[in-house]
Amino acid sequence: MTNCIFCKIINKQIPCFKIYENKYVLSFLDINPILKGHILVIPKKHFTNVLDTDDFYLSEVIKVVKLISNNIKQKLNCDGINILNASGKAAEQSVMHLHFHILPRYDNDKLNTFPKTKYIKKDLTEIQKILKID
Amino acid sequence: MTNCIFCKIINKQIPCFKIYENKYVLSFLDINPILKGHILVIPKKHFTNVLDTDDFYLSEVIKVVKLISNNIKQKLNCDGINILNASGKAAEQSVMHLHFHILPRYDNDKLNTFPKTKYIKKDLTEIQKILKID
Repeated sequence: MTNCIFCKIINKQIPCFKIYENKYVLSFLDINPILKGHILVIPKKHFTNVLDTDDFYLSEVIKVVKLISNNIKQKLNCDGINILNASGKAAEQSVMHLHFHILPRYDNDKLNTFPKTKYIKKDLTEIQKILKID
Repeated sequence: MTNCIFCKIINKQIPCFKIYENKYVLSFLDINPILKGHILVIPKKHFTNVLDTDDFYLSEVIKVVKLISNNIKQKLNCDGINILNASGKAAEQSVMHLHFHILPRYDNDKLNTFPKTKYIKKDLTEIQKILKID
């Protein structure tokens, strides 16, 4: 897409700190890293987010997410890995081209990946009825 | 695996609030939801996390993650979706069987998915040299 910054990176119109590339997928450092080793993995075809990505590209992307995760774990000797993805501004998606964030984690790094809420479960049966796919 | 709670759910030894199932993948409500509509997607074969999951199962799982994400978006009429995954205790993985968390998000819900840190980028070239896969 013309105005998509990630498409411009794919097309080499703007540079990136490339980590890995194959025919369908590109991986590079997040230019505004949350922490050292924060990497993005994107499809080389434009999709907005997970919701509209075709299954083929989604599979190719997740395989590279795994590759990059193992690569980070080995080379940075971290203790864990988080994979984060957002669809929509409400979910904190900033660039509207599918991307998975990969973050190295360390014992006692005191980060929190999972939102802290005061939600009290009480309607699991109700919500199951709403969401169940038969 | 004998002592894996998710394997016990797969084998119907313990119940779950099932949302969707196919030959390779199972999806159910998180029993300790962060918020209403918090769903897990798991492979029906035991893998510890993304790092050791074979590519076939990984692809099958991510395709169901997409299906469930679209299903949540449509049925809960939310504004966005987060997908979260953890490998290792350091990354806040609690059950040692691969699972993706899917969370509905709403405009102005005031949640934070991405860890807040004070990391200042200054070594992107250095970290690229360490992590680059040729």
